[in-house]
Amino acid sequence: MNASEFRRRGKEMVDYVANYLEGIEGRQVYPDVEPGYLRPLIPAAAPQEPDTFEDIISDIEKIIMPGVTHWHSPYFFAYFPTASSYPAMLADMLCGAIGCIGFSWAASPACTELETVMMDWLGKMLELPEAFLAGKAGEGGGVIQGSASEATLMALLAARTKVIHRLQAESPDLTQAAIMEKLVAYSSDQVVATLGTTTCCSFDNLLEVGPICNKEDVWLHIDAAYAGSAFICPEFRPLLNGVEFADSFNFNPHKWLLVNFDCSAMWVKKRADLTGAFRLDPTYLKHSHQDSGFITDYRHWQIPLGRRFRSLKMWFVFRMYGVKGLQAYIRKHVQLSHEFESLVRQDPRFEICAEVTLGLVCFRLKGSNKVNEALLQRINSAKKIHLVPCHLRDKFVLRFAICSRTVESAHVQVAWEHIKEMAANVLQAERK
Amino acid sequence: MNASEFRRRGKEMVDYVANYLEGIEGRQVYPDVEPGYLRPLIPAAAPQEPDTFEDIISDIEKIIMPGVTHWHSPYFFAYFPTASSYPAMLADMLCGAIGCIGFSWAASPACTELETVMMDWLGKMLELPEAFLAGKAGEGGGVIQGSASEATLMALLAARTKVIHRLQAESPDLTQAAIMEKLVAYSSDQVVATLGTTTCCSFDNLLEVGPICNKEDVWLHIDAAYAGSAFICPEFRPLLNGVEFADSFNFNPHKWLLVNFDCSAMWVKKRADLTGAFRLDPTYLKHSHQDSGFITDYRHWQIPLGRRFRSLKMWFVFRMYGVKGLQAYIRKHVQLSHEFESLVRQDPRFEICAEVTLGLVCFRLKGSNKVNEALLQRINSAKKIHLVPCHLRDKFVLRFAICSRTVESAHVQVAWEHIKEMAANVLQAERK
Repeated sequence: MNASEFRRRGKEMVDYVANYLEGIEGRQVYPDVEPGYLRPLIPAAAPQEPDTFEDIISDIEKIIMPGVTHWHSPYFFAYFPTASSYPAMLADMLCGAIGCIGFSWAASPACTELETVMMDWLGKMLELPEAFLAGKAGEGGGVIQGSASEATLMALLAARTKVIHRLQAESPDLTQAAIMEKLVAYSSDQVVATLGTTTCCSFDNLLEVGPICNKEDVWLHIDAAYAGSAFICPEFRPLLNGVEFADSFNFNPHKWLLVNFDCSAMWVKKRADLTGAFRLDPTYLKHSHQDSGFITDYRHWQIPLGRRFRSLKMWFVFRMYGVKGLQAYIRKHVQLSHEFESLVRQDPRFEICAEVTLGLVCFRLKGSNKVNEALLQRINSAKKIHLVPCHLRDKFVLRFAICSRTVESAHVQVAWEHIKEMAANVLQAERK
Repeated sequence: MNASEFRRRGKEMVDYVANYLEGIEGRQVYPDVEPGYLRPLIPAAAPQEPDTFEDIISDIEKIIMPGVTHWHSPYFFAYFPTASSYPAMLADMLCGAIGCIGFSWAASPACTELETVMMDWLGKMLELPEAFLAGKAGEGGGVIQGSASEATLMALLAARTKVIHRLQAESPDLTQAAIMEKLVAYSSDQVVATLGTTTCCSFDNLLEVGPICNKEDVWLHIDAAYAGSAFICPEFRPLLNGVEFADSFNFNPHKWLLVNFDCSAMWVKKRADLTGAFRLDPTYLKHSHQDSGFITDYRHWQIPLGRRFRSLKMWFVFRMYGVKGLQAYIRKHVQLSHEFESLVRQDPRFEICAEVTLGLVCFRLKGSNKVNEALLQRINSAKKIHLVPCHLRDKFVLRFAICSRTVESAHVQVAWEHIKEMAANVLQAERK
């Protein structure tokens, strides 16, 4: 395929994408397929000679779409949102075209520098303490990781390396293994210090945990994967109070800030803690500026060596929405979750199981776990909306997460009517 | 931005991308900017109100492009190639639109199933032993990781968990820490068993290493990040002989197989070794099929929880090139590297420093490291082509890697004329 064919096919794909997203409400949110559905539909091996683009495009509707769970349907209320916006998709096209691998400053200076500045922009939107920002000569700064898991792993490894160095400096006879045997990582039953847990969006009390960590010289990593996006709104920013005690902090703009996956934002107060743990300097990656002290080589900040030009997505989204547009987006989702909450509260058969702070409502039928399992099963079998459950203590609970960029009050109302109908069926079946 | 504006802007972006790649030869391959160039060019914080798309597009040429190292320029001969093709870019557009997060089968069955089948397709292209393929009920199978570093980390962690379980089964009193203190990971000076090292594209002898690992019950991971793509050609497949002794194998289609970053292909013989080390099953990720035994939940195969629909890129590329098209692509690059090699060999001032097997030529001026450092410095300052160096034993060596999808013999000839000119200048300066 040459550039002129790409011009043609690329524009067809733009239309396909726009059609898909415009019409997504009309597609069944959860697919009908059974495990193993796809293999018999396609050849056992790659073709020797090229297929045509028409073949491939027609196979998308025949083979792929029947097996897609439509995460961007306004009837998708499962897990947590994953971000999707047109500006991010445009930026991703540009990212693919530039196709640089930003492991060092020299490998593509714009890729590194835009990332550092975008992480400062985002840090300022969140009113992060100055120490987390790179600025022109700060000791801290931000980096885009692929996922919150990677950010947590980096924080753990950096913390481990730091404490090993400290103890070996105090007692040079100690082996690394002897130290590691004694190291302890504290966590709650929802992992590390968390703002907005996945099960029920609960919040750890940083103002209690933070000072203790600082006093005991314990690395404090804060994970706000989902909730972090909300902190750009002043009314939700108090949830982040205590971040000043943390050594590292991360959240995922790719969840709730309209930046398509992957884009997990991580900040550290001392970049040397990361780069000290992961420094990698073979000759072929060295460049003339690297020892100048003003250079960021992001390969030292992460597990992978390679990295895409992901900050373009942030740049496009932040500029095309503006901070006010992003705040309005968050507020709309929170308002919709409260709307759903109040519908649930008006029905005496149901109960709310956790405080509704952001875009997640945990609810259930008053009664046994069995009846709630039956309710969820009925809802997800009908495939009109899609939900997933969680356990809160020993209770089986349904999670209703506001997810789609295009979800409106009308969809929430339809979903609630549907849930009530399913509930009536379940309760009736139980009485029999 | 709504769908109709996206139709318009998306098509403009398609044209921008096509223009960029069609005209890339006319851009200076390495930028002129100094560290810190970007920050003063953009505001210190995100705008409150939206910017226009016109503003952003015009800033791409003003702010971003001056700082881009053009990896897809036919004058880029640095590092190793990073893949770029139009079919992969089309697939990425679709991937962004579907925007599913494929951590479990249920989260989007097509995303999981196409990946499993594409990894089988690719495994067959490489003539991997049957044990590495998933098929309908195999014990092995493939997974797309983000990078070779992640694949290696996964292999190390799986190997460690496996040996700990084995030793604890033999001696239940042993603590994990006591075992870990005694564990040894063997590697060469280029890391794990490698086919096609980054410095000089050398190959470990798997037929020697493999049987010893198997006899001693040592996990053997083989990394062929760059070279692996060549094994789809029968004439290069013998380089992979011995893979039958390995427990895990990986290479990066995102380097040399026209699948844009990221797409690192990893296979294991026993998927239970990976999923045993990384199983993660909170209630909200459970689904009705997961214990059926026929299901792949890829979150157990990797560090991150989230994952994009990356197999679409493989599907588009394999089908639109066909196996023969991909083989022709590899062969053309290898032929160009031999063309460069023979140009170097014809000039008595130069020497070839390592056997040229695939697309990399390691060469230098006969003489001191100093004169070669001066040569590289002159070449990279002129910015007509871009190279990086390596050290082979104690020698400073220049690497000439065939990288761009569009590189032709004419570019190689121009590059060599330029290198000779720079060399003449360096040698003349030295004589003074």
